[in-house]
Amino acid sequence: MEHNTAPGDPRIADLGFARVDVDRAARTGDPEVVYGAGKTPDQVVAILRALHEKHPERAVLATRLSPETIDVLAEALPEADLDLVARAATLGPLPTPRGTVAVVAAGTSDAPVAAEAALTIAVHGAGVERIDDVGVAGLHRLLGVRDRLEAADCLVVVAGMEGALPSVVGGLVGVPMVAVPTSVGYGASLGGVAALLAMLNSCAPGVAVVNIDNGYGAGVHAARVARQSAPR
Amino acid sequence: MEHNTAPGDPRIADLGFARVDVDRAARTGDPEVVYGAGKTPDQVVAILRALHEKHPERAVLATRLSPETIDVLAEALPEADLDLVARAATLGPLPTPRGTVAVVAAGTSDAPVAAEAALTIAVHGAGVERIDDVGVAGLHRLLGVRDRLEAADCLVVVAGMEGALPSVVGGLVGVPMVAVPTSVGYGASLGGVAALLAMLNSCAPGVAVVNIDNGYGAGVHAARVARQSAPR
Amino acid sequence: MEHNTAPGDPRIADLGFARVDVDRAARTGDPEVVYGAGKTPDQVVAILRALHEKHPERAVLATRLSPETIDVLAEALPEADLDLVARAATLGPLPTPRGTVAVVAAGTSDAPVAAEAALTIAVHGAGVERIDDVGVAGLHRLLGVRDRLEAADCLVVVAGMEGALPSVVGGLVGVPMVAVPTSVGYGASLGGVAALLAMLNSCAPGVAVVNIDNGYGAGVHAARVARQSAPR
Amino acid sequence: MEHNTAPGDPRIADLGFARVDVDRAARTGDPEVVYGAGKTPDQVVAILRALHEKHPERAVLATRLSPETIDVLAEALPEADLDLVARAATLGPLPTPRGTVAVVAAGTSDAPVAAEAALTIAVHGAGVERIDDVGVAGLHRLLGVRDRLEAADCLVVVAGMEGALPSVVGGLVGVPMVAVPTSVGYGASLGGVAALLAMLNSCAPGVAVVNIDNGYGAGVHAARVARQSAPR
Amino acid sequence: MEHNTAPGDPRIADLGFARVDVDRAARTGDPEVVYGAGKTPDQVVAILRALHEKHPERAVLATRLSPETIDVLAEALPEADLDLVARAATLGPLPTPRGTVAVVAAGTSDAPVAAEAALTIAVHGAGVERIDDVGVAGLHRLLGVRDRLEAADCLVVVAGMEGALPSVVGGLVGVPMVAVPTSVGYGASLGGVAALLAMLNSCAPGVAVVNIDNGYGAGVHAARVARQSAPR
Amino acid sequence: MEHNTAPGDPRIADLGFARVDVDRAARTGDPEVVYGAGKTPDQVVAILRALHEKHPERAVLATRLSPETIDVLAEALPEADLDLVARAATLGPLPTPRGTVAVVAAGTSDAPVAAEAALTIAVHGAGVERIDDVGVAGLHRLLGVRDRLEAADCLVVVAGMEGALPSVVGGLVGVPMVAVPTSVGYGASLGGVAALLAMLNSCAPGVAVVNIDNGYGAGVHAARVARQSAPR
Amino acid sequence: MEHNTAPGDPRIADLGFARVDVDRAARTGDPEVVYGAGKTPDQVVAILRALHEKHPERAVLATRLSPETIDVLAEALPEADLDLVARAATLGPLPTPRGTVAVVAAGTSDAPVAAEAALTIAVHGAGVERIDDVGVAGLHRLLGVRDRLEAADCLVVVAGMEGALPSVVGGLVGVPMVAVPTSVGYGASLGGVAALLAMLNSCAPGVAVVNIDNGYGAGVHAARVARQSAPR
Amino acid sequence: MEHNTAPGDPRIADLGFARVDVDRAARTGDPEVVYGAGKTPDQVVAILRALHEKHPERAVLATRLSPETIDVLAEALPEADLDLVARAATLGPLPTPRGTVAVVAAGTSDAPVAAEAALTIAVHGAGVERIDDVGVAGLHRLLGVRDRLEAADCLVVVAGMEGALPSVVGGLVGVPMVAVPTSVGYGASLGGVAALLAMLNSCAPGVAVVNIDNGYGAGVHAARVARQSAPR
Repeated sequence: MEHNTAPGDPRIADLGFARVDVDRAARTGDPEVVYGAGKTPDQVVAILRALHEKHPERAVLATRLSPETIDVLAEALPEADLDLVARAATLGPLPTPRGTVAVVAAGTSDAPVAAEAALTIAVHGAGVERIDDVGVAGLHRLLGVRDRLEAADCLVVVAGMEGALPSVVGGLVGVPMVAVPTSVGYGASLGGVAALLAMLNSCAPGVAVVNIDNGYGAGVHAARVARQSAPR
Repeated sequence: MEHNTAPGDPRIADLGFARVDVDRAARTGDPEVVYGAGKTPDQVVAILRALHEKHPERAVLATRLSPETIDVLAEALPEADLDLVARAATLGPLPTPRGTVAVVAAGTSDAPVAAEAALTIAVHGAGVERIDDVGVAGLHRLLGVRDRLEAADCLVVVAGMEGALPSVVGGLVGVPMVAVPTSVGYGASLGGVAALLAMLNSCAPGVAVVNIDNGYGAGVHAARVARQSAPR
Repeated sequence: MEHNTAPGDPRIADLGFARVDVDRAARTGDPEVVYGAGKTPDQVVAILRALHEKHPERAVLATRLSPETIDVLAEALPEADLDLVARAATLGPLPTPRGTVAVVAAGTSDAPVAAEAALTIAVHGAGVERIDDVGVAGLHRLLGVRDRLEAADCLVVVAGMEGALPSVVGGLVGVPMVAVPTSVGYGASLGGVAALLAMLNSCAPGVAVVNIDNGYGAGVHAARVARQSAPR
Repeated sequence: MEHNTAPGDPRIADLGFARVDVDRAARTGDPEVVYGAGKTPDQVVAILRALHEKHPERAVLATRLSPETIDVLAEALPEADLDLVARAATLGPLPTPRGTVAVVAAGTSDAPVAAEAALTIAVHGAGVERIDDVGVAGLHRLLGVRDRLEAADCLVVVAGMEGALPSVVGGLVGVPMVAVPTSVGYGASLGGVAALLAMLNSCAPGVAVVNIDNGYGAGVHAARVARQSAPR
Repeated sequence: MEHNTAPGDPRIADLGFARVDVDRAARTGDPEVVYGAGKTPDQVVAILRALHEKHPERAVLATRLSPETIDVLAEALPEADLDLVARAATLGPLPTPRGTVAVVAAGTSDAPVAAEAALTIAVHGAGVERIDDVGVAGLHRLLGVRDRLEAADCLVVVAGMEGALPSVVGGLVGVPMVAVPTSVGYGASLGGVAALLAMLNSCAPGVAVVNIDNGYGAGVHAARVARQSAPR
Repeated sequence: MEHNTAPGDPRIADLGFARVDVDRAARTGDPEVVYGAGKTPDQVVAILRALHEKHPERAVLATRLSPETIDVLAEALPEADLDLVARAATLGPLPTPRGTVAVVAAGTSDAPVAAEAALTIAVHGAGVERIDDVGVAGLHRLLGVRDRLEAADCLVVVAGMEGALPSVVGGLVGVPMVAVPTSVGYGASLGGVAALLAMLNSCAPGVAVVNIDNGYGAGVHAARVARQSAPR
Repeated sequence: MEHNTAPGDPRIADLGFARVDVDRAARTGDPEVVYGAGKTPDQVVAILRALHEKHPERAVLATRLSPETIDVLAEALPEADLDLVARAATLGPLPTPRGTVAVVAAGTSDAPVAAEAALTIAVHGAGVERIDDVGVAGLHRLLGVRDRLEAADCLVVVAGMEGALPSVVGGLVGVPMVAVPTSVGYGASLGGVAALLAMLNSCAPGVAVVNIDNGYGAGVHAARVARQSAPR
Repeated sequence: MEHNTAPGDPRIADLGFARVDVDRAARTGDPEVVYGAGKTPDQVVAILRALHEKHPERAVLATRLSPETIDVLAEALPEADLDLVARAATLGPLPTPRGTVAVVAAGTSDAPVAAEAALTIAVHGAGVERIDDVGVAGLHRLLGVRDRLEAADCLVVVAGMEGALPSVVGGLVGVPMVAVPTSVGYGASLGGVAALLAMLNSCAPGVAVVNIDNGYGAGVHAARVARQSAPR
């Protein structure tokens, strides 16, 4: 049973258990990222190290870290920065932020997803503004921050349950928005599918949506938009 | 092949093609109603007539009428009142209204469902207040009618697409509310399922929900609540 | 990464990890409530305490408490009342009940949801009548309590599996009813979706439905209806 | 492109467009049946004729006939018996009935499915008793026929919408029962899936279920049970 | 909060935590049964004891027993008969069997469901014949037992994965059949939904279906059919 | 039955059948838009006219026009510009474009959705570049346009069937991207749900998704991004 | 709005409304194919002509032709061969067949899908053997053709409803098999999803599956397998 | 309760808890296989031993082994070969490979499924070529191995998340391909359903699909194709 070997292609780092694409930054302008789910703590450490060696000047990001992986990381890579709410880590210096993304979250339970989005945005080179606990059932909290929404270059709006927040925000301001449904809820929330469907059917125009709990994906999109925006 | 025959039970009117329950008013205090879907125009006329004869002092209601049925009805029962938007008809005098239900609709396309709810409420003995075109994407329209929401004994809130309106209304006032998802939308609205799920997962407490496009059911619930409410 | 801070708005209590809306009572007439799922025991204790300080004259409610949270609560807030079946707690005096809600449950396994509804109703200011084990497969049990159903101002009907109980109850009496599907069942019950769909499609008019296992939501709706009902 | 040809097997009738299994009666004791959906009127006529020639002493059955097929059949096979409600036809003498099946239907709109079941039962050699319009929202109609339910050897219970009727019937009597969900309903009835799920989750024991609108399948099962039952 | 109390109705046994219907035998001819899921071991023991005292002459059945409940039962009720494969127990003498049900299982993993069906049949008064490991992928095993299938008064056919066995059996013999889909499978088996759908769509006529893994329900239906069948 | 009337609010145009929000441009910077589905031709004409009178200096857009509406529009508003592929129309001068959006479509059948996106982008003030027929099954077509993808400020990527195109494009360039699943396909495409799910699960980071066939929503998002982008 | 133009790439034929990939034969060894759904008759004719000019020595294939397209084709391209059952056409000489595929169909209603598979196989260079009407409910028909199944290099097995045929065939012979679920059925067949799920969960090893009604896809796979098989 | 006994049929090995079909090799040319899920370690050992005794000259395969089963196996059958990544084992000599299958995997997390496919192929008599980490988001990795794809007799393409890899591979080469969706992903991946649907809707012709995570089934199909292919 012959196995394919890394053919010396400098765009690929062969770690034995994985052939890592180390060329993404060149192709897309984004930093390298490790998706931690389904990887052992040692694999995450090894990939983070390899990516950091390849790109020492710029933070690499690891997401979806299990508690075990966080413990191993803290020991093996003490120079890494851990974000316990986001269950994520960075290694290397954050880039200078260009533009601003406001990360807007409906409720306390949405905090891990909002934190993942916020850290992703910072690693991808944009500034972050956090606006929390502005769920639609207490509208005065949201109406009080309209100016801050309007000042951002891009919005990431995070909500679970019925996922109504993006529609209300989208009726207030015309800033580009990415909505993130979360799996917060029970029963007919179907693990976040109810919020996902609501966001896809928003009556507010221009709401773009990512996968359930995908703070990372929303952060990448928003950071790209913010960092290319002209200063106001 | 022996068939069951109406055993002289006065609670049942045997029309040959159907054995109609004419006892509902006694059991529940509600008027008699004909669900027109899947019935021929002649069947609808015959049942309406039978119910009206049994209850001449109080309007009976026919819903979900096809254009053909409406034409036949107009000819056969000229004394019936037709509501073309609600695709419904009444026969007999409306009761004196007790209490008030506000029927709140998000968009123009929700009008048939809102109209069915409004007519049902009137037939079931409560007053109706219509509040239209207050979808969440233009919040100022909703905020401008908060007093009228608060003055009602019960709310029927009608919305399609992402179904966010009940959550926002439920955050503004504590009036009992029934939410009606509509099939307005396309693609991932899944024929109204997206709005239905959103309403079932509302972060505003106390939102009770009926079937997609079921203005009638919402109207029955709301009229019962309104007519038993103490005057304020 | 700048964070939004509570701008001195008295309607918001900033606990650091959450910005709690303490204005709901003013807006809706309902008590303050903590949804315990996804919160640490310490967070639940802190929020309960903050809400109680703001509203010492009226019970606040905590629902969906894990066994761990219940243990911590019992120790930290010995003056709280714990309801182990409902997995809930209250802090502060219950209001004087106005009106009556009958909580009707199909089977023994539906008890936690029925208990959550009952406690919610009491906290929200209405009286409670419990009617248990009246599933439709033994109809004599239900027919024997028809008078008690009719005497209530509102019904909360709780059932899992095929969710048929609301339809049968709705054919017996015309009292406003909220149906609660439960996740009791297996296989094609799909975690309560079968009961939910059945209740949404009830042939009895006026059945309004809440999310699977949502005794709290049903209780809020029913208490609002009961406490505004005119005495009979 | 070679085609397989009927190899003179007397169990197969080769009509060119179809190779009909004419051996089912021998294997299963049941009559031959033509499923009319997706076949042209001429194909239905040709197959009915071929089956009748093979089994002239016993009625053959054709189901799911379109209006066009019924017209062609009436002309081409005037000796056939047409059942317009069941959208079905028989050709040849009905067998002498053994045992009795009660076909119980919830509402008027379920009539076509109930009629298909009833005709199927008669063609498969059992007697039929029809009990119509006994939906659970008017329980007195059902309770009045309990004796007739108990007297049957098997029950076919037909209902759409929330599909609660089999659970209630199954709590009243211990007769073997087949439940048939119908596609009567709208919105969250999902074309009959809600009723199907409800019946599969019945809290009454022993409820066996067939496909949505499958009066034929229920009739076959029930007739087999009834005709082998010992006389009482 | 007033609670309903057993009003001395001899058809109901009030155990405090449950009001048990002890009248089912009189209404339906079936034994009393305890569904163990969601009940504590002590509750199961208490209900079994109460039912046995009411019906000492006839076995009562407990199904869906957890390993803990089985241990407690073995200690508390040593006279009970335990079936470890079926995860069930009986207390009291089995009735004399009338008629025969063949329980046919596709694979080894379907054994628990087949065993639950077999024990249910025995408790409900019919004889049982087991036919195992006759999945359709090795057809010779099934064809070799055709005589035994034909000799039964009713068939219970148990299969997971693609659920094809009932269709093949239904093409071989005309005996009344109940099909039981099992949750055996992975991925697109969707917890048994694939097998359930296949059985509902069987091209063999007369296949009636019960819920996923519901050996009990199939056993009840089949025993009723078998015990009323005329001897051959 | 009292109806709410437009209270002289200049942000709302009351047309009798609808209360149109004419304030969106002020709030969001976007033009006014009429969603034509579910509206009569006369309603579309009336709303277009009202919006155009309010904003004569800037094109208003009408989407989802039926063939009948297009005919009526052509007659009633000859000065409107019709886009027959997009089933849309504009009235008034297009704004000067700022920035560029590349609209990338997988196949010929995706053309209507791509055209709706393109027209929406133009109306919303950005330039459009069309790249068609670059489905992933013929990769050379896509690889040949990589430069043009990279030159855009935002991408709208339109695909039906398996919806793979956004993942491949997202691996080639780091430009902000909105993916639009289309309902092109059959069977297990489930009306576009397969493509929608694929895009939500893209392994390429930063793919944001809109509803099935929602070229309009994608166009709004992309135009907002493009027109605020700094020139390169 | 600039449009991309065919850059003289000989692998692409620019027809104005489409940029056709005419290079597939070179890359994959397969003929060129037009998918007719969603294309006008004139578009189909134009593409067929362009492909035929490019590859005059080998038949090109058009599938999913509407009745209108077939009429236009018959007139515009009289030299094309039409297959009315398959709703398909070929233009140019069929290749010499290598190897043999047996196309096995369960019922008469599956004929269009089986015919599409058969024609596709012939166009893709393999021989075809048709085996029809061998559904599992009449097993003797299938057992009688086992030799012909075994003689084939690949099998295409077509079935609707419960989709059991591939499992039974897969237990009889070890020939590579592609299963095609069809949309034949109603109710819980969910448009072919029931058969699709059954085939994906087949207990017979090695069953590979294509989309519902996708005779074309199955034919391509099978022809590739057959034509590369060593003669036996 | 009589049990069926193995009637001396040499095609069946009766192990008490199971009646094993030991005839498959004769019927299909494939080796015997034990599906380990749902079996105890001792049962797996017993079946493996029985199959090995029947077929000592050729490896038998056990898949889906739990860690416990692997431990027991290692002790009880030290001569067995364990594949820890594939969670599988073989006992007996592997056959001489005929033909080659390339197993292509998108990401590191797909490794267990790819390993199961690879081992299955080897046990079923074909050669294996592994090509890993060639997901579509880094296309250069895939384009670099096109020659190796083209050299294979059959492809097994393994991918989770959006499942796009088979479409891209299918556009590059015309080799017969089996696609395996994996459950790698979260949220709207729905446990692999998103990838499954994508593969079924592939715009590349001839993609045949197996169940989610079913490396075994794909391996059986591919090995059959490869070992009958004519040498090139």
